[in-house]
Amino acid sequence: MSTDEFKSLREEIKQLTGEIIKAAARRRQLARRLGELKRALGVEPVDLDTEAELRAYVTKIAVEEGLDTEVAQRILSILIQDAVSIQQRKEAPRITHMDIFRRAKQLESSGEKIYHLEVGEPDFGAPRHVAETLTWAALHGYAAYGEAKGRPELRRAISEMIRERLGVDVSEEQIVVTPGGRFAVYLAAVSTLKPGDQAIVIDPSWPLYKQVVEAAQARSLILHTRLEDGWRPRLEALNKLLSHNPRAVFINYPNNPTGTTLSRREMKEIIEEVRSADAYLVSDEVYMDYCFTEFTSALEAGYEKTIIINSFSKSWGMTGYRIGYLIANREIADRAARILAQLLTCVPEFIQIAALKAVKDKETPRRYGETIKRRLDIACGELDKMGFPYTKPSGGMYIFPRVGGPNFDSAEFALHLLESTRVAVAPGTTFGNYPEFIRISVGSSEEEIRRGLEILAENIQKLRK
Amino acid sequence: MSTDEFKSLREEIKQLTGEIIKAAARRRQLARRLGELKRALGVEPVDLDTEAELRAYVTKIAVEEGLDTEVAQRILSILIQDAVSIQQRKEAPRITHMDIFRRAKQLESSGEKIYHLEVGEPDFGAPRHVAETLTWAALHGYAAYGEAKGRPELRRAISEMIRERLGVDVSEEQIVVTPGGRFAVYLAAVSTLKPGDQAIVIDPSWPLYKQVVEAAQARSLILHTRLEDGWRPRLEALNKLLSHNPRAVFINYPNNPTGTTLSRREMKEIIEEVRSADAYLVSDEVYMDYCFTEFTSALEAGYEKTIIINSFSKSWGMTGYRIGYLIANREIADRAARILAQLLTCVPEFIQIAALKAVKDKETPRRYGETIKRRLDIACGELDKMGFPYTKPSGGMYIFPRVGGPNFDSAEFALHLLESTRVAVAPGTTFGNYPEFIRISVGSSEEEIRRGLEILAENIQKLRK
Repeated sequence: MSTDEFKSLREEIKQLTGEIIKAAARRRQLARRLGELKRALGVEPVDLDTEAELRAYVTKIAVEEGLDTEVAQRILSILIQDAVSIQQRKEAPRITHMDIFRRAKQLESSGEKIYHLEVGEPDFGAPRHVAETLTWAALHGYAAYGEAKGRPELRRAISEMIRERLGVDVSEEQIVVTPGGRFAVYLAAVSTLKPGDQAIVIDPSWPLYKQVVEAAQARSLILHTRLEDGWRPRLEALNKLLSHNPRAVFINYPNNPTGTTLSRREMKEIIEEVRSADAYLVSDEVYMDYCFTEFTSALEAGYEKTIIINSFSKSWGMTGYRIGYLIANREIADRAARILAQLLTCVPEFIQIAALKAVKDKETPRRYGETIKRRLDIACGELDKMGFPYTKPSGGMYIFPRVGGPNFDSAEFALHLLESTRVAVAPGTTFGNYPEFIRISVGSSEEEIRRGLEILAENIQKLRK
Repeated sequence: MSTDEFKSLREEIKQLTGEIIKAAARRRQLARRLGELKRALGVEPVDLDTEAELRAYVTKIAVEEGLDTEVAQRILSILIQDAVSIQQRKEAPRITHMDIFRRAKQLESSGEKIYHLEVGEPDFGAPRHVAETLTWAALHGYAAYGEAKGRPELRRAISEMIRERLGVDVSEEQIVVTPGGRFAVYLAAVSTLKPGDQAIVIDPSWPLYKQVVEAAQARSLILHTRLEDGWRPRLEALNKLLSHNPRAVFINYPNNPTGTTLSRREMKEIIEEVRSADAYLVSDEVYMDYCFTEFTSALEAGYEKTIIINSFSKSWGMTGYRIGYLIANREIADRAARILAQLLTCVPEFIQIAALKAVKDKETPRRYGETIKRRLDIACGELDKMGFPYTKPSGGMYIFPRVGGPNFDSAEFALHLLESTRVAVAPGTTFGNYPEFIRISVGSSEEEIRRGLEILAENIQKLRK
């Protein structure tokens, strides 16, 4: 009787499921004990080499026993996560950068004058002719659903701009117009990463990269760079992490928060390593026009698995327009466009038409870049008087000085600075394990930057105590 | 020596991991055999009762053995998914609605006249004064980063509109302005669902609900409704699914694609059941102003776990502006705003200011609603001549007639119709297991609807063969 077999099979599956859960519980006990030993021996909870060995072992067994290897790896990811969570005594930071941003807004809305050295938004605004093009488009009915990848003429114009500036050919089918650079970063992550995957992020870094990796249920492998190395990633360190088979590597030059740029040779070396590891290279190039040496795009290396992130926010001051774009190979671009269509249909047509006007305007990015350069020079001058160590930015719109020594807590410092002097800065802890650093932004006017830093200088001795 | 213990613990963990993977592989073999038996006995691969029993059993063992129950359930979800995937011989549909949309666009761009009865976009456009407000805002510099939840005055205006129309008090902190209704649906899903969760979707349904459930790595439980019941969900069927502890229930009245609306009593009954099960109720009310009986919002029941989705696309024809909103309790609204801030910063300010103008305009939604009603009457008249069974819409902008009998394939029919007559309709299979149905949209002009349906009538006998 097949119904008898049916019942007994069900029972057998249930018992086997119970065994699996019991084994997972036993594994957790062993992991807890191992965690105690790790602490006693002063060993980090996460050990990538052991993990890589375990992953290989699990794949081998899955193949031998006829289990889908992806299913096996997903189970392993849960077991590893469980072990890490039991081994890590996570201390939540007492103060985060969000507390500082919120408090600055609070003080401001109660009428206080705040010196904004914390914001990532330049104060330029869009050029008049771009705003006028937007209004023309809106009044002429460009407000219907459109192609998910964006209007063909805009993608064509971006493609032409790239050919002209970088000498690289990109077809319009490889370009996806997005509502801002943030969404392009998100699309890059969810179009490439699967649950349980790993992605390299080079710290200090804009927090978004780690956030989108987490959103894709993948894990960030942190490449920690140092002021002493001019914030350059060391190739050996990169290679060590690449040996763990990450699916993607996020880079961002000119860099937020350090202002580092890479030479063509350095960029090429990094990309060659990423290529050897067959990982995706996600290159965030939104500060392309705030670059005071020759700008080098990751596109130039011609690596097929490169994904470029760019935006109209910095080059044309179109922050509130929320428009950016992603460039990738056809497969990834198609996948990204499908996700964009599902969540948003498309970027509003009238904004795309304004962006088309912007992309043909070469004067504004040059002028905005010069203004940022001038502001950075002023800020560096003020910082030099204070004697803080930092790398002079060759791009971007930030400076990342070390303002404290060992055991310094930049988040506490930033909050204290804000409360006592009304100067807002971003703490280094926002960008990774950098408690001795702060980030100074030059999004505000020269006057505000100068005055803000003077106030910082006047109070720094008192505040560091 | 603790380093010896360290090594032996590591080895033990490795062996145990191998045992877990082997057990999962064995489980897969049993599941495959069970699948064969199910097919022989004509039983569905997914059996929610058995699954619920298994979930309870796993929780019990996890508690007994000291494993985090959430970890245990996540492992079980992977095992169940693996079993279902091996038991389901998924036949990919040969033709999807996307093929039809694409083909219609292709034909159109090569100069062919297409009768658009397939689109979800009304042809109204935004009223002139809304477009003018947008242009005013853009020229006056409303183009910077703003609050993630949206501009306070817009949220206040939405709150006032709701108080006036529905007699319900909603604080502005409960409102999140989103780039379109789609993104609001996505936020509702990712703010409530965790991997392995379940969510009820009432079919026929707009495909987005199932897509966002999948994006949150949760699973849809389908409540299949029928033309014979006037497309109303039966409470017993709802209760049966609610007994499986879904985290959320998606509803959409006036309904896409059937045009069904619920009476206040029916809405209340459904919400009471959802409340008893302590699930979130996600109510998509974007067709609120296309309602030809008294509109009932889920808000009126006062259930704390209600999430409302709305949009400016239908009420004010602002499809290409990409603006909508979500209303939820404070906790969910805060969570949704955090996700929105991460992916998009905010909706462009100038669009929000245009929406503020729209929300105070009560005349346009009334007029657009009347136009849709008139078009639906015309379409119903044409369909009546053909004798297709359908429920006369009391809201929405669609009709969902049964045009075929058993073994009819509406996707093949729709493609054939498009190729031979240039009339585009959406196949019923887009909205669930409804191969005998098609969806007629009245987004286009009266003339186009009438002519399109006349062509359908002239060719229907030939095409159904």
